[in-house]
Amino acid sequence: MDTEPRRRGPFWDMLAGRVSPPAAAETLGWELIEVDPGQGTIEVAFKASERFVNPIGVIQGGFLAAMLDDTLGPALVATLPEDQFAVTLDLHVQYLRPARPGRLIGRGRVVRRGREVCFLAGELIAPDGKTVAVATATAHLQTRRG
Amino acid sequence: MDTEPRRRGPFWDMLAGRVSPPAAAETLGWELIEVDPGQGTIEVAFKASERFVNPIGVIQGGFLAAMLDDTLGPALVATLPEDQFAVTLDLHVQYLRPARPGRLIGRGRVVRRGREVCFLAGELIAPDGKTVAVATATAHLQTRRG
Repeated sequence: MDTEPRRRGPFWDMLAGRVSPPAAAETLGWELIEVDPGQGTIEVAFKASERFVNPIGVIQGGFLAAMLDDTLGPALVATLPEDQFAVTLDLHVQYLRPARPGRLIGRGRVVRRGREVCFLAGELIAPDGKTVAVATATAHLQTRRG
Repeated sequence: MDTEPRRRGPFWDMLAGRVSPPAAAETLGWELIEVDPGQGTIEVAFKASERFVNPIGVIQGGFLAAMLDDTLGPALVATLPEDQFAVTLDLHVQYLRPARPGRLIGRGRVVRRGREVCFLAGELIAPDGKTVAVATATAHLQTRRG
């Protein structure tokens, strides 16, 4: 696993403990399993909480979208130099199967990285190995000023 | 406002206090403003929490997707008879502007209601009246057994 403790930028600063994980990631129980910025791939885990269920007792689709956003986004952010950040322009999620509370694995990848626009894809996997949702996203790279 | 206290079904049972609000709705600070099942429209409010922010201090796009799912879904569910429920097949969100923690308004509508498949749309509005995100979704109607 490529953790690169000396690398800088929001993603690597968080991994090295130099900054706190974002609140959104903590709320979703986000945990890094493996990241390969050279390949533009990432594998993460989430804790799908009882707090995320809908009236029929399965994880509300929107929270699966939040997990997919927090899978696809970091796949890209891990590849960025310190002065760049990525803004999600759109996110499309297809719900293949219901997901129960518990651990879900997110796999994300950079499908195409342009100079300003990047295309991302990924999926969420249940403990039985079945894919519960797939997603694509478009992101816009911006440079931090100052 | 059409509250129809005697009407049955998950949506109306929740409004009348006969069942608890789903955990996902509570986590998002969901609150009904107005619903018109005849028109297939709904207006709701959310409390975009500090727990939902990303590393650049704005609400993580996935949580906006969760709010939109909890806007479009109820617009449809409010129209269903007691023995039917709706499963979201897909959700597409476009992020127009960053959203800060605070109150966000969700407006949802049933664009087309088929016998089994329904098309939904809606948007999230910031306190300054600007639209922060728009969404479309496809839902599949199913009948409760037993």
